[in-house]
Amino acid sequence: MTVRLPLAEVEALSRRCLVACGADAANAEAVTRTIVRAEQDHSVSHGLFRLPGYCASLKSGKVDGHARPTVERPAPSVVRVDGKNAFAPLALDVGREPLIETAKRQGVAALALVRVHHFSALWAEVEPLAEAGLVALACTAYKPVVAPAGARQPFFGTNPLAFAWPRGKKPPYVFDMATSAMARGEIQVAARDGHAVPLGAGLDAAGEATTDPNAILDGGVQLPFGGYKGSAIMTMVELLCAGLIGERFSDEAAKLDNDDGGPPQGGEFMLALDPQAFGHPNWLEHSDAWLERLAGLEGVRLPGQRRHEARQKTPTTGITIPSALHAELLALAG
Amino acid sequence: MTVRLPLAEVEALSRRCLVACGADAANAEAVTRTIVRAEQDHSVSHGLFRLPGYCASLKSGKVDGHARPTVERPAPSVVRVDGKNAFAPLALDVGREPLIETAKRQGVAALALVRVHHFSALWAEVEPLAEAGLVALACTAYKPVVAPAGARQPFFGTNPLAFAWPRGKKPPYVFDMATSAMARGEIQVAARDGHAVPLGAGLDAAGEATTDPNAILDGGVQLPFGGYKGSAIMTMVELLCAGLIGERFSDEAAKLDNDDGGPPQGGEFMLALDPQAFGHPNWLEHSDAWLERLAGLEGVRLPGQRRHEARQKTPTTGITIPSALHAELLALAG
Repeated sequence: MTVRLPLAEVEALSRRCLVACGADAANAEAVTRTIVRAEQDHSVSHGLFRLPGYCASLKSGKVDGHARPTVERPAPSVVRVDGKNAFAPLALDVGREPLIETAKRQGVAALALVRVHHFSALWAEVEPLAEAGLVALACTAYKPVVAPAGARQPFFGTNPLAFAWPRGKKPPYVFDMATSAMARGEIQVAARDGHAVPLGAGLDAAGEATTDPNAILDGGVQLPFGGYKGSAIMTMVELLCAGLIGERFSDEAAKLDNDDGGPPQGGEFMLALDPQAFGHPNWLEHSDAWLERLAGLEGVRLPGQRRHEARQKTPTTGITIPSALHAELLALAG
Repeated sequence: MTVRLPLAEVEALSRRCLVACGADAANAEAVTRTIVRAEQDHSVSHGLFRLPGYCASLKSGKVDGHARPTVERPAPSVVRVDGKNAFAPLALDVGREPLIETAKRQGVAALALVRVHHFSALWAEVEPLAEAGLVALACTAYKPVVAPAGARQPFFGTNPLAFAWPRGKKPPYVFDMATSAMARGEIQVAARDGHAVPLGAGLDAAGEATTDPNAILDGGVQLPFGGYKGSAIMTMVELLCAGLIGERFSDEAAKLDNDDGGPPQGGEFMLALDPQAFGHPNWLEHSDAWLERLAGLEGVRLPGQRRHEARQKTPTTGITIPSALHAELLALAG
């Protein structure tokens, strides 16, 4: 059973829920924009699906729905936003223009978001930078659900990593991926729907490889993508978004979290590079021709294509969500 | 049949070969340092093994053994080195101090090496930055031997990616990995020794998965590590070390190369971040305690450990190389 909603209704419902649960207009607005954007691109796992979690953290007081994040500039090419325990989107709204302006002036700039609660999609965060002509990279951690390669204990979050490359008038090249073999939500959906997951997704409670999503979720552990190499990438993500910027590693975040169903306190690292600062005036045509050659290979599909297709359609068609979720959100909205 | 050589002899032999093949003292010295460092760390595939390739490119005139790379500063946080067709190590020697100085002043800095020929190990290039207290990331491309996920045609190089994190008085945390499932050299060694390679390493000429290294090398193609996710990382590497800095993508490099057995002209991208610029004075103790927790998990081994162990031993024990290679090098040295 599903309900069809126009995007305007997604927006209104999100705003009502967040305000009813304790967010002020600015905080509700920032989160709502990311939810609408996710639904518009059919990135369902980051849309209304997350709203109960957002609301839970407002209600428990873990997240401050009245926070006013502030910008600091600890070094000429570094922008630091103290989120003051807001959800990440508002902190990012405050840091985005300083990051863009700094990268265009300096050639390279880093953005450190600290004291934020991250629950949204990274692709939606790097894409605007590429639309502003910059190359962008972003990553964040979470709570430990992934065992490093060789180990059996959860230690890493699913540690998403996103990258965006500008393509002029075309939509940017964007990838956004959990650096675990599968996103947590993908395993949860497989469990709900009774599907097996590929070998390599995780281990059961005894530390054995399994294709049973329930065995991974109940006492088991997820695995990195790509074995030892993916495990190294996961290590890098933790070091950038916790070690470098002074925020919590996944294992620390879990210990300090109140388990209200929303995101723990953590950090996000973002890098922006201005190709115009590297001395190659022809960079756009040069890289775009290469991406065209890549996309032209038989069997290759550039990431983000499905999102861009959905983006064109959903303003007309609206989106669908499970009736149970719709009912839950109506109740939260009061 | 092998020959044992003290490190001093590795150094003398490398210098003699390079000078005999057309390098001046400065160019021979920079390459020799990377070769000695690789042999000292038992990173055999980047040591004397590569010297015939270095020499071939000097003799063919593709690489200029008398080059004097120059430093430019196209933006406040960007250092650009025009290698003038030197091997990468000399260009990096010229760019390293400006990169370190810029990162410490700005918080973040990028180094673009253009018109270089890269044939050495990235770990040896990022480690000195971490020893100077900086976080470093480096990547480079090559010639196409890897098919993007879903495709069957070679398009990417093996595109190594390296990352270094400072640990105070301990050796830095460093990973350096081909972003293909296996390094080219690993597949060549398996072919030479008659061993199978793991499924996922590559496809045969018919586009079928194979464990036969010869089938991959003769008309087949290598694959990315970690499927679609690794393929995205490989795309990012090409965009950073070619698209961003205005150098050749792997498929372009191959077309313009003279196939003399040495490295094609290409670029290298390096990023340096100063943790002290991010406003967390306790970053070193905080991150080091986390790395200790990671290393303490049963089954985990941090990358680089074997190299550090070898580094202690080889100054006393010397190293061994195949007698045939030794004879070849003596002939090159004249």
